[in-house]
Amino acid sequence: MRRGGRPGAADRRAARGAAGGGAAVTAGGAGEPTSARSARAALTRVLEPGDERAGRWLRQLGPDELLRRFTAEDGSAERLPGMTAARLGGYRLRAAAADPGRDLATVAEAGGRFVCPGDREWPSQLDDLGDARPVGLWVRGRPDLRLWSLRSVAVVGARACTPYGAHMAATLGSGLAERGWVVVSGAAFGVDGAAHRGVLAAGGATTAVLACGVDVAYPRGHAELLGRMVEQGLVVAELPPSAHPTRSRFILRNRVIAALTRGTVVVEAALRSGSLATARQAQRLGRFAMGVPGPATSGLSSGVHELLRGEGVLVTDADEVVELVGDMGELTPDRRGPVLPRDHLDASTARVLDALPYHGAARARDLARAAGASTDETLGRLYELHSLGFVEREGDGWRLTPPCPSNDDARRGGT
Amino acid sequence: MRRGGRPGAADRRAARGAAGGGAAVTAGGAGEPTSARSARAALTRVLEPGDERAGRWLRQLGPDELLRRFTAEDGSAERLPGMTAARLGGYRLRAAAADPGRDLATVAEAGGRFVCPGDREWPSQLDDLGDARPVGLWVRGRPDLRLWSLRSVAVVGARACTPYGAHMAATLGSGLAERGWVVVSGAAFGVDGAAHRGVLAAGGATTAVLACGVDVAYPRGHAELLGRMVEQGLVVAELPPSAHPTRSRFILRNRVIAALTRGTVVVEAALRSGSLATARQAQRLGRFAMGVPGPATSGLSSGVHELLRGEGVLVTDADEVVELVGDMGELTPDRRGPVLPRDHLDASTARVLDALPYHGAARARDLARAAGASTDETLGRLYELHSLGFVEREGDGWRLTPPCPSNDDARRGGT
Repeated sequence: MRRGGRPGAADRRAARGAAGGGAAVTAGGAGEPTSARSARAALTRVLEPGDERAGRWLRQLGPDELLRRFTAEDGSAERLPGMTAARLGGYRLRAAAADPGRDLATVAEAGGRFVCPGDREWPSQLDDLGDARPVGLWVRGRPDLRLWSLRSVAVVGARACTPYGAHMAATLGSGLAERGWVVVSGAAFGVDGAAHRGVLAAGGATTAVLACGVDVAYPRGHAELLGRMVEQGLVVAELPPSAHPTRSRFILRNRVIAALTRGTVVVEAALRSGSLATARQAQRLGRFAMGVPGPATSGLSSGVHELLRGEGVLVTDADEVVELVGDMGELTPDRRGPVLPRDHLDASTARVLDALPYHGAARARDLARAAGASTDETLGRLYELHSLGFVEREGDGWRLTPPCPSNDDARRGGT
Repeated sequence: MRRGGRPGAADRRAARGAAGGGAAVTAGGAGEPTSARSARAALTRVLEPGDERAGRWLRQLGPDELLRRFTAEDGSAERLPGMTAARLGGYRLRAAAADPGRDLATVAEAGGRFVCPGDREWPSQLDDLGDARPVGLWVRGRPDLRLWSLRSVAVVGARACTPYGAHMAATLGSGLAERGWVVVSGAAFGVDGAAHRGVLAAGGATTAVLACGVDVAYPRGHAELLGRMVEQGLVVAELPPSAHPTRSRFILRNRVIAALTRGTVVVEAALRSGSLATARQAQRLGRFAMGVPGPATSGLSSGVHELLRGEGVLVTDADEVVELVGDMGELTPDRRGPVLPRDHLDASTARVLDALPYHGAARARDLARAAGASTDETLGRLYELHSLGFVEREGDGWRLTPPCPSNDDARRGGT
């Protein structure tokens, strides 16, 4: 309907996308092109993030049928529970303009992919969001989103942070990276950017969750940072390519950051700030909410202090963060050894694992040579292997995790 | 035995003190001179603060008999459980030198008194220290120690504090004073001094608990501050006049600060500092331990942050302190109206209460004129009356507490 199309046009486009956009609709080699995948891609353009009512319809009808109803004029959309004429008008306008084939192609050209619930790369902890779960995630960057998210922590905070806030964010970022944790943030100015940069400076793993399309450089001043993250990390968004951020999209983006990670650290935040909302969301989802203290006289610490006077836990360095989040999930630092059977690894990850010496540590560059991959690619695989418990960092290098006392323990928690 | 006396000399001195040192051994007009009071005064010179073994003997034998055994050579001291020859040697030396009559006279000349367990002015919350309870307290200053301690909070912290720490201590001090709370601290440089000064600047009530005699200006640089506190507040010590502080006396003094107050706020403290020990002691005694956050990069906040990562509660202003400690004891801010029958008030306090207008507020100066007392004296009485729930502050003035909804509630908790 974008060009005055008739009922069913979106359906046909969806089918075309599924059939014709082969490379684009294949999710990281794990799934087959499906009309459901294409319909989900289209729905990321139709539904605003976190629309729980539509999430319920999606759960009940599936993506194909929900998308069909938004474009059909058979009265089926009007009968959706909670639907109003005003709402339907909005959905119909957007559904008519949706072109999932084009979106999938755009992102594929940028080296990206679209990851759906049920895909091997889908981070299943997002399912904790219930009907507010993202319809799908647009992803740029080489690493596997699911594996990188297993041992991840969010570091968030004020855009207009103080030099102290920027220092703490960067220090936490690099400290968490050195301890093998993936740092998730929102790529904003201030605390977010400092955290991402701290991780990158330490050669670590970091994921940006955007409130716009993964091909949109927002904020503009972070275009170079986002470029580096696409090369060395992950850039993720619920919104389709070219989508622009809005106030409510920022707020709703935060629930993805909270759900994706084992805990959220707020570095500096005024009262009633979005970062505080992220931390509270994390708590509601059973994750840890943490805060970095600051002077009681600083308005940019007052939100953090409010959090710490509630259920939030005070942290002053990466060790204290890891002490907390490491105890929470199934992958505690005390647990040694892999939690995923070796033959579940994909070929290139297995090659990196095979390259590791039986005794002692090796540097990523040497492992890359042995595995026949680039150093960046190898580092990404090493972080995956670390998340899964196969390898450990040792100084500048990496080594195999020593065998754990009980094999039963090591296998518990496998996929 | 100070001048080569024989067995029984201390006993005789004690009796002399009781009989001859009338003014000195009378505790604020509440008690009668007794040999027990004189013996306790002597024991403050014999026993180091917090000597629990001696506290047990004191509880079992009473002060007269314990002092007698330290000076007698009938073998009765040797039979005390846990006594060794080395310990007894120390006790005997000090007991021989003790001259309670002189000490009581010295403090009386300085306008002070000696307050013993069981006296009307004894703050009975000190009994929570068990056998480590002070033998007695040497007190300088006009106000009633027990009444002032009912609604009191300790504000403690590092001697070598930062300007931020000094600012927070002074702000908390004046804020607590404005809310009708008595601020207790240790008169040390840094946080302690800033807290006391903040209170005095607000015309409030503050108590210093010293680790030396109440007539010793320690630290020397606080001689003027201590002088002002004797005039406007209270200066208290377990140690007899002229006694000098030692490292262990500082540490043991802290237990008195912790026990006297409803909670302890640590403003700045390095790891393993004495202020942290005070807060931990407060927790063990069932009081609140609170901490003022600071930059995670500041070594002088690291001890506070450690406390806040445990059971300590983060506070950033006086309201947050009052919210916490006001909920704890029997005198919550929500509870309105007196908790002590009016006819238990002493005559001068009752006169100040009578001077208050039935409606509206009056200033302390006007109330002083009406009650026929000095403004300082009247302010002290007003703080007492506030502690007991009879009056409230209103702006610069004072007014009667409005009648509470239920008289039963108001009377619950009365002595």
